[in-house]
Amino acid sequence: MDAKLLVDHVRLTPILIADPPLLNVQGVHQPYTPRLVVEVVTRGGVTGLGETYGDGAYLDLAGPLAERLPGYEVTDVNGLFALAETLDGGAGGGAADEAGVDAAGLRGVRTAEKLRLSVVSAFETAFLDALGRTLGLPVHALLGGKVRDSVEYSAYLFHRWATHPSSGPVDDWGAALDPAGIVAQARRFERLHGFRSFKLKGGVFAPEREVAAIRALAEEFPGSPLRLDPNGAWSVATSLSVAHELQDVLEYLEDPASGTAAMAEVAAGTRVPLATNMCVTTFEEVPEAFAKGAVGIVLCDHHYWGGLGRTRELAALCRTYGVGLSMHSNTHLGISLAAMTQVAATLPGLRHACDTHYPWQTEDVVTARPVFQEGRLAVSDAPGLGVALDREALAALHRRWLDDDGTLRNRDDAAAMRVADPGWTQGSW
Amino acid sequence: MDAKLLVDHVRLTPILIADPPLLNVQGVHQPYTPRLVVEVVTRGGVTGLGETYGDGAYLDLAGPLAERLPGYEVTDVNGLFALAETLDGGAGGGAADEAGVDAAGLRGVRTAEKLRLSVVSAFETAFLDALGRTLGLPVHALLGGKVRDSVEYSAYLFHRWATHPSSGPVDDWGAALDPAGIVAQARRFERLHGFRSFKLKGGVFAPEREVAAIRALAEEFPGSPLRLDPNGAWSVATSLSVAHELQDVLEYLEDPASGTAAMAEVAAGTRVPLATNMCVTTFEEVPEAFAKGAVGIVLCDHHYWGGLGRTRELAALCRTYGVGLSMHSNTHLGISLAAMTQVAATLPGLRHACDTHYPWQTEDVVTARPVFQEGRLAVSDAPGLGVALDREALAALHRRWLDDDGTLRNRDDAAAMRVADPGWTQGSW
Repeated sequence: MDAKLLVDHVRLTPILIADPPLLNVQGVHQPYTPRLVVEVVTRGGVTGLGETYGDGAYLDLAGPLAERLPGYEVTDVNGLFALAETLDGGAGGGAADEAGVDAAGLRGVRTAEKLRLSVVSAFETAFLDALGRTLGLPVHALLGGKVRDSVEYSAYLFHRWATHPSSGPVDDWGAALDPAGIVAQARRFERLHGFRSFKLKGGVFAPEREVAAIRALAEEFPGSPLRLDPNGAWSVATSLSVAHELQDVLEYLEDPASGTAAMAEVAAGTRVPLATNMCVTTFEEVPEAFAKGAVGIVLCDHHYWGGLGRTRELAALCRTYGVGLSMHSNTHLGISLAAMTQVAATLPGLRHACDTHYPWQTEDVVTARPVFQEGRLAVSDAPGLGVALDREALAALHRRWLDDDGTLRNRDDAAAMRVADPGWTQGSW
Repeated sequence: MDAKLLVDHVRLTPILIADPPLLNVQGVHQPYTPRLVVEVVTRGGVTGLGETYGDGAYLDLAGPLAERLPGYEVTDVNGLFALAETLDGGAGGGAADEAGVDAAGLRGVRTAEKLRLSVVSAFETAFLDALGRTLGLPVHALLGGKVRDSVEYSAYLFHRWATHPSSGPVDDWGAALDPAGIVAQARRFERLHGFRSFKLKGGVFAPEREVAAIRALAEEFPGSPLRLDPNGAWSVATSLSVAHELQDVLEYLEDPASGTAAMAEVAAGTRVPLATNMCVTTFEEVPEAFAKGAVGIVLCDHHYWGGLGRTRELAALCRTYGVGLSMHSNTHLGISLAAMTQVAATLPGLRHACDTHYPWQTEDVVTARPVFQEGRLAVSDAPGLGVALDREALAALHRRWLDDDGTLRNRDDAAAMRVADPGWTQGSW
C-alpha cells in the first residue's frame, strides 16, 4: 500500500460561526453556532478537509477518533467506520448514550449511532478529499462520476428578527415576520443568487400565517417549486388541512407532523408529497417508514448518514423503493457545501433542488466563497473537494470558541429564544 | 480531467471454456460454455479487465456499448450506466426484449434490465481495474477498503457424470450420482483447496436422495456449514419437509421453491434460513421479497446486479433490512473470481462463505491460477484486480468460439441433457 496515503495526523478545530436570528419551532438560532473542522493530514503531506456539528458531544467522539487514526489509509473508509464503532461501544457510554445527545432536536431522532455517524462523516469527507488531492481526482470521480455540471439549491427562507436579542453579529436583512417580509427575503435571495425554488422554515407562527406566506410566494413566483417545513410541529389534522390548502403550489411538505406513524397518516390523506429529515435520518428508521408509506422524499444529509458514500447508499435505497431524494441542510460552511455539491453531482435520482443555509453565513473557513448562479453551484473538477482552508479565518473562529464561556458551545435554540422571552415554550398546532 | 483516464478503445472477446458435465434441475452443463472477456484500454495505455456471460444476447448489447465508450473516463461509472440505458431503450428492442433473454433460467428472472446490468457489470469491473492500475491502488481500495485479508469460498458440489454424453473435455473426477459420490467429491475438494463449507446443487434427483447426500456430508464433516440448492424445483410442501428433515445441519436452504410467494410461504414455516439467487436478482424484486420475508440471505452476484459498486449497494440494502448476504456463482474464470474476491473483501456484512464454480474450471484466461488455501483466497493488494491476461489462452478459447457452429454459443443445459436423453424433461417435486 502506498505510504503517502497513510494518515499522519489529524487536526480538530472547534469554531463558533456567526449565525443570524433565524426562527424555527425550537426557538431561534444563537448568535454563534458551533462547528468542527477536521483536517486529515497524510504522510504524503496532503490535507483533507471535513466539517460537521461542533457541539460538545460531537467533540467528545471526534477527539479519540482523531487520536487513533494515524496509520490508517485514506482509502480505508470501512476501517474508519469500524474504528468509530469501537469508540463508544465501551462501558463508559458517556456522551454517546442513547437519547438526549443532540441539543437541537431539529436533527431528528437522537441516538448514539447517529451521533457517531455525524462525527465519522467529517472524517470520511476528509479521507475522500485527501485521496482526491493525492490522486488528482475530484471527489465526485471517487464516487462514480458526476451526472451534472452544476447542482441546484433552494432559497432557504426564514422568519427572522432584525437582530439577536442580546449582542451578536448584525446583518442588513432586517426582520421577516409576515408574508410580505418572507416575499421580500425571497426576492432578495433571488436577486443575489438566482434561486428558482423556495423553502420556508415553518412551525414558528400559527399555520394560517405560514400558509399565507406560501400563498404570497406562489403569487410572487408563479410556477416556482415551493416547500414548507414546520419541523413536525403540527398535528395530523393541521398537516392535512395545510396540505389541502396548498396542494396546488407545494412541491412537497416537509415534516409536517412528528414521527413515522403521524407522517404515514398525513401521507395517506394527501397527494402532496411528504419529505423528511426528521422521521428518517438513520438507516434503522428506513424500513418502517418506507413500509408505512410515511415519506415520499428523503432529505439526505451526509452529516447524519455517515458521509458521502453512505449518502450514495441511501440514494440506492430510495431508488430501490421508489422514494424520492432531496438534500437537507443545517447551518454549515464552505467545506460541507463543497461536500454536498460533490455528492449531489453523482446522484442520478436527485430531482429536487438541495437545501442550504449557506447564504445566511457571513463567515467561512474556505479561501474562496462559492458563488451561486441561477441558484446553482458549479461542480468543481479540481482535486478533492476543490476548497482550500483559510487558516487565518479558522484561527479567528477558533479563538471565538476558546473565548466563549461555554454558553454557545452547544447549540440550543430554545435557550437563545428565552433570552428574549423567558417564558417561551415550543409551539404546536 | 486526466486524459490518461479516458477510454481509448474496448476489446471484446467471446470465448468458449471447458465445463464438466455438472447436473442441475435444468439439465447438464454443456461441454463448453460461452463467456465474454472485456478489455477497456485507456489513453494512458492501461488495460482494465472484465468478464461476464457470453451468450448471444449479451454480445448483442456489449458490442454497441463498447463502440460508444471511447472518450468516457474510467471513473465515470454513472456515465457508463447512463450510456447503457440508451442502448436498448430504442424502438428496436431486439435482444433485450422482456422475457426469454436468458437461456439458462438458473439466473432468475429474465428482464431486459437485468440483461443490460449483466453486460454493464463487466465494463464496470474493467473501469475499476483500469482505474486501480492507473492509480496504483487495488480495486478494494476504490470500494472503501478491505475488511479482511482473505475471502472464504465454499466447495460447490454437483451430481455429475464422468464424461459428457458426446465429445467434450474430460477430467478425472468421475461420476457422482449418489450420497457416497458426493461425499467423495467433497473430500477431494477439501484435500485440494481446504474448503470448510459445502454446497450441494440439488434439484437433480428426488429430494430424499439429496437429503441423504446432505446427511452423508454432515456425518463426514461434522459441524461444517452445509447448503442445498435445488434451484426452485420443489413445491412448498416438499421444501418444508426437506427443511424440517435437515434443520439441524443446514446453514441455509437455497431457492427451494420458485418465486417470492412460494419462498415466503416456506420461510414462514421453517427456522432454516432461506437464501436466494433466483427470486431476488434485481433491485426491482427487493421490496416485495423483503416485505414478505421471503429471503433471509441474498446471494449477491456482481454480474447480475450491475458490478461491484451495485453489489455494495445491495449489501447496504441487506444491512438496512437485516437480511443476510452471501455470494452466488455461475461458471466463470479468474477475472470474475478476482472481482468477486475484491468486492467480497469490502463487505463487512458478508458472513457466509461465497460460492464459486471456479475449481471446476480447467481453463482460464489469467496468467496465474488463483490458489485456495484453507478454502480461502488471499485478497490481492496489487493494483486493480491483480490479474493479468494470458493472451495465448484467450486467443485459443476465442478460436474455439469462432469454430463453433453456433450450438454452444448460447448456454442451454436442457439441450445438452437431451443429447443423452432425448425425452428428458425438467423435474419438479
